[in-house]
Amino acid sequence: MNFSAEELRRFATQIFTKIGCPENEAQLAADVLVNADLRGVDSHGVARLSGYIRLHEKNRLNATPKIKTVHETPSTAVVDGDLGLGLVVGPHAMNLAIEKAKNVGSGWVSVKNSNHYGIAGYHSMMALKEDCIGISLTNASPLVSPTFSKERLLGTNPISIAIPTKNQPPFVLDMATTTAANGKLEVLQRKELDAPEGWLQDKDGHITTDAKGLMKGGSMRPLGGDREHGSHKGYALGAVVDILSAVLSGANYGPWVPPFVAFIDPAPNPVGEGLGHFFGAMRIDAFRDGEEFKSHMDNWIERFRASETVNPDEKVLIPGDPEREMTAERLKNGIDLLEPVVKDLSELGEKLGVELIAGNS
Amino acid sequence: MNFSAEELRRFATQIFTKIGCPENEAQLAADVLVNADLRGVDSHGVARLSGYIRLHEKNRLNATPKIKTVHETPSTAVVDGDLGLGLVVGPHAMNLAIEKAKNVGSGWVSVKNSNHYGIAGYHSMMALKEDCIGISLTNASPLVSPTFSKERLLGTNPISIAIPTKNQPPFVLDMATTTAANGKLEVLQRKELDAPEGWLQDKDGHITTDAKGLMKGGSMRPLGGDREHGSHKGYALGAVVDILSAVLSGANYGPWVPPFVAFIDPAPNPVGEGLGHFFGAMRIDAFRDGEEFKSHMDNWIERFRASETVNPDEKVLIPGDPEREMTAERLKNGIDLLEPVVKDLSELGEKLGVELIAGNS
Repeated sequence: MNFSAEELRRFATQIFTKIGCPENEAQLAADVLVNADLRGVDSHGVARLSGYIRLHEKNRLNATPKIKTVHETPSTAVVDGDLGLGLVVGPHAMNLAIEKAKNVGSGWVSVKNSNHYGIAGYHSMMALKEDCIGISLTNASPLVSPTFSKERLLGTNPISIAIPTKNQPPFVLDMATTTAANGKLEVLQRKELDAPEGWLQDKDGHITTDAKGLMKGGSMRPLGGDREHGSHKGYALGAVVDILSAVLSGANYGPWVPPFVAFIDPAPNPVGEGLGHFFGAMRIDAFRDGEEFKSHMDNWIERFRASETVNPDEKVLIPGDPEREMTAERLKNGIDLLEPVVKDLSELGEKLGVELIAGNS
Repeated sequence: MNFSAEELRRFATQIFTKIGCPENEAQLAADVLVNADLRGVDSHGVARLSGYIRLHEKNRLNATPKIKTVHETPSTAVVDGDLGLGLVVGPHAMNLAIEKAKNVGSGWVSVKNSNHYGIAGYHSMMALKEDCIGISLTNASPLVSPTFSKERLLGTNPISIAIPTKNQPPFVLDMATTTAANGKLEVLQRKELDAPEGWLQDKDGHITTDAKGLMKGGSMRPLGGDREHGSHKGYALGAVVDILSAVLSGANYGPWVPPFVAFIDPAPNPVGEGLGHFFGAMRIDAFRDGEEFKSHMDNWIERFRASETVNPDEKVLIPGDPEREMTAERLKNGIDLLEPVVKDLSELGEKLGVELIAGNS
């Protein structure tokens, strides 16, 4: 069923206010979610809305957090999210990083005591309009096994880096540190298709092509897939994301990260508070003339786009291209939500007294 | 043939002084090279020494550079390496990053007009003794094709991140953003073995298992190997390394990066000066109490080491483990250089009047 971004934003905003979020924070949280839908990262959009509400019902999410800076230097800080929505805590911390970049060239903020912050790219891209390079990392529910392990010790721990340009659209990397993002698995599950080798392992740690392997006690594999193809690199990148997000801030790390799904309780004996994020902003003119930098970024992008390809029907993409094309398409034609998502949102709306209206007006 | 680290350091130092490097810079450059040999990264050790000398003969390397900071803010800088040895320019820039971290919490230095800087890990690890997290990136000779491309547009563009610990050895990630490092290919070439699929493509862009594919006009593949296994992520990471190292500093980027081998001329119409690096240092106590951080790092490492493995004879490794074990072994038993490397160094020594003495005393 088809919905306009505007309608989904209104709906999610009202849902968040119903659980007690202040209006402006509810709007911000809704904007982060719908931004994921617009960019085609359906797994991180409004499909997750009822998940946040269930966390709130379990007292694992604070609708009225007092977000505090608990430690800082001119270029760094640790922020305590007071168990708020990561969708609100994230932008708060990213703004702090940008402010520090304005003052001393760069800003780096590690966050504890937060919840799931939506797509990593929302936060990194906040830096673009300030002529900064933006960096956004987060740890997440443990679903990934390090190379050689059969335990779930890491999340899909994404890395996003957004870089300003002149006439070209910005360079926006936004990637899970696993071979494939969870959202891609969900697509295969719905179509009853197998997953390629290297995406998943079963509960005993052996490679599986069963796309439902995660539901059967298996885990995701780090980028690379296996040792011979560099999975130790994907594992190490996911580890760095975990450490900068959580060991540096005082959040939970590794297998202690509280799961997003409310029906799984957090690990006993937590090693920190909530989950963790890490944000960075670097002013481009803290390095060289901003216009010069942007012209060279355009040149970089144009050279790579012009690259000769293996097959004539393929082209070399620049990070951010697919998501931007999807956004243009969905702004024009609306966001087509899957039937189970519409059902879930409608039930949530009925329960909290908010109507969901289909149609792309 | 077997050599002590001390002897290789002495030999390389004297070679560098013979081309005019000041004594202290020659010592530093030799230390960076031999550190690679000790860590088992043979492709980046003294085996490269004559390559640097050939660059000097071609006037593509300045033995007496005046390294200058050309732009800076309290937490950032651009350094002009004056076409010096990256082995000297790198540590200079990393020290500047650490100094800024001491002043304002973090320091970020992008470098232009440099040459090959050895192993990325040498520079990131300089931060450890200052209780900083160290970051080291560099671009490199174009050998890697972006996903879907058949051109060589990127280097193996490594990422190194070093993180301090308490009683555990430090966490040291040091990885090429390709599926496999060039050094691993060289091992297969010598043994006349095939490379696994996903490491290389031939000159038409098709996957090849010919370990000598690079010599036949092929290229390396980004981490992931192919689109289905996430090679667009490896490509994007390599791209970020290129941009932070070169677009941000004013060095050459992408296909314009000057090749390390002196017999290939740099591309005409350069887009910048020399090649580029990027360094970062973050003081851990700019985020939280340093001892607290280090205790949690130990806890992180101990939990991952204790992980249940798929096969009982495997264990989960922490980034830096293999290199540290190799260092201990080679400090004890010496560094076994391959015959062609010994021959190459002996000839170099003869030409410049420096004796190379075998044996691990």
